Amino acid sequence: MDTEVCRRFGIEFPLFAFSHCRDVVAAVTNAGGFGVLGAVAYTPDRLEEELRWIDDHVGGRPYGVDVLVPGKIDESAERGGGLDDMLAAIPAEHWAFLAGLFEKYDVPPPDFEKAKRSNARGGTQVTKRGASELIDVSLAHPIGLIASALGTPPPLMVERARAAGVPVAALVGTAEHARRQVAAGADLIVAQGGEAGGHTGEISTMVLVPEIVDEVAPVPVLAAGGIATGRQMAASLALGASGVWCGSVWLTTEEAETPPPVKEKMLAATSRDTVRSRSRTGKPARQLRSAWTDEWEGPASPGALGMPLQMIVAEGAMRQINKVAESGGPGARQLANYFVGQCVGLMNTVKPARQVVYDMVQEFADAVERLNRITEG
Amino acid sequence: MDTEVCRRFGIEFPLFAFSHCRDVVAAVTNAGGFGVLGAVAYTPDRLEEELRWIDDHVGGRPYGVDVLVPGKIDESAERGGGLDDMLAAIPAEHWAFLAGLFEKYDVPPPDFEKAKRSNARGGTQVTKRGASELIDVSLAHPIGLIASALGTPPPLMVERARAAGVPVAALVGTAEHARRQVAAGADLIVAQGGEAGGHTGEISTMVLVPEIVDEVAPVPVLAAGGIATGRQMAASLALGASGVWCGSVWLTTEEAETPPPVKEKMLAATSRDTVRSRSRTGKPARQLRSAWTDEWEGPASPGALGMPLQMIVAEGAMRQINKVAESGGPGARQLANYFVGQCVGLMNTVKPARQVVYDMVQEFADAVERLNRITEG
Repeated sequence: MDTEVCRRFGIEFPLFAFSHCRDVVAAVTNAGGFGVLGAVAYTPDRLEEELRWIDDHVGGRPYGVDVLVPGKIDESAERGGGLDDMLAAIPAEHWAFLAGLFEKYDVPPPDFEKAKRSNARGGTQVTKRGASELIDVSLAHPIGLIASALGTPPPLMVERARAAGVPVAALVGTAEHARRQVAAGADLIVAQGGEAGGHTGEISTMVLVPEIVDEVAPVPVLAAGGIATGRQMAASLALGASGVWCGSVWLTTEEAETPPPVKEKMLAATSRDTVRSRSRTGKPARQLRSAWTDEWEGPASPGALGMPLQMIVAEGAMRQINKVAESGGPGARQLANYFVGQCVGLMNTVKPARQVVYDMVQEFADAVERLNRITEG
Repeated sequence: MDTEVCRRFGIEFPLFAFSHCRDVVAAVTNAGGFGVLGAVAYTPDRLEEELRWIDDHVGGRPYGVDVLVPGKIDESAERGGGLDDMLAAIPAEHWAFLAGLFEKYDVPPPDFEKAKRSNARGGTQVTKRGASELIDVSLAHPIGLIASALGTPPPLMVERARAAGVPVAALVGTAEHARRQVAAGADLIVAQGGEAGGHTGEISTMVLVPEIVDEVAPVPVLAAGGIATGRQMAASLALGASGVWCGSVWLTTEEAETPPPVKEKMLAATSRDTVRSRSRTGKPARQLRSAWTDEWEGPASPGALGMPLQMIVAEGAMRQINKVAESGGPGARQLANYFVGQCVGLMNTVKPARQVVYDMVQEFADAVERLNRITEG
């Protein structure tokens, strides 16, 4: 395939794969696509390790990194006191609600005091300081793209990426945000529809992509949200996108580190089984509907906190829930979930990530062939 | 263009236009598409008039009718007592809330007692008896399609359509509903994504269309929801649809009977300016966000009633609001709204309906051409 994005990023197919799993990133890059590692869950040291591993496995082929630098987070996280400030800002009733959930679903609770501190360390990665460290680690590797997953890329990110000669991508959910991101220096816009997994707005991919393509032309736009097949890739390019950005579809690949009970749920889920909920990060993020999302919406819920406080409450709990679910706890299985888009309904078999790329490219070609038959008829 | 749907329905372009306005229906049919008149707002006598007019203006070219036969409506409407049963089922607080809205927004209220009875007559059109009358009127005309807009087409509709040799279409928002509709006798499925105007589910067009195409093959599927341009038409066919079904895009055409203040709002609206709300019909329907939808979501709201009771409360009020808005009342302008999908953000100029068809077909061809350049590159 020959597109501007293919030429510019040195890839065969304009297919970008967002994953927190280095094996997926390397597999997609090696198959002719462009793997992008989601860095938010990593400490700087761990990210360094992951990127070194990728460098060793892609033979110089292009890959990128995605960091989460939200525009607005709870002010306790930026106050400078680090973990202590954040922990102090979490009301006791949230820990009590969490303890109640563990009891109700018969999940042995983690050591909350210990968990709090380790979770809070995770919370620091979305602060400006935390994200800045991840950016520095990333730019020291031969990456071909740095992406800002949420909010305008901060000047610091754009400056350092420019200095390193690395293009900057930004994920957006509205045309207005796209305009702002381009003004802030984004070289590539990812137009992400509301059907996407993770943090997302409400405008669908079908409407958002042509809107943003018209808004930011000639800046190239990748379509994201609801894309797991070659037909959807062809649809995205028909809408005017220069390529696609897929996240969910990798979660059920052989390589994915998705906890097995969650993988099973995803394979069985229909497109109706997701919900946009603030219960994992504090910002609306699409994920599997489960007892976890239901309880946080329920009458006993104290309501989700802001980001990153809700992450601190949720992530340690989900680690324990996944562990117990994996060893068969039925209550933990009810609670278990993960970020995924509506295209989870189309994810019904486990394949190697490489095969997903090849299948998408083949189905893309078939879809274009079908369109030709229609117009030539 | 040559598709199975084109051959089967005797049209040049697989573009179906849903409209309550006979001029739009005739214009699209005459331009080579397939116009479908939404019958729900009409009494049987009025529908007879509209269809006679269309017959006189399309020179034998194909068009269809869409009736709304909801699966579940408020039981008062089916009790047999007609208007009185329905009016008795509406709590006084809903009329009081409505009167309060008129006062707050400085809109002279209609004669509520008179309005109640005329609105309730509208409510009877969505009962089984009311819909049945509209079906009979429709099938006495040379229509090429009868569509069920909400819920499984009732056996009565399928039987009478079969006897008249008229194909039956059904609008659906999930793969499960599509399967049920085909089992009930639907010949054509309209897969309508959550970005659509009017009654809609939550799964986006990008995900829903391939899901339903796979579910009901070889029954043909039209894509609906978010489609207002030729790029989106090409995307829909890339997804596997056999054609598209558009509703919103006609609302800002020259022919449309959209109240002028609402048309102005639509031309100015972005894709963010819609909301799924029960405030007009009692079932979730996407429409322009306005003071009307905000107030029904607000703290003073008694909550929307079921269908058709909420229609009785809302429709008479909206008629008065539109009238006052048209003569410049600022409060009425704030309240005014109408059903429309997220693609309202792409509807920025007033064109004849014929021109919308031609532009979509031309842009469709351009999109396919662009896809070819990508694959051949």
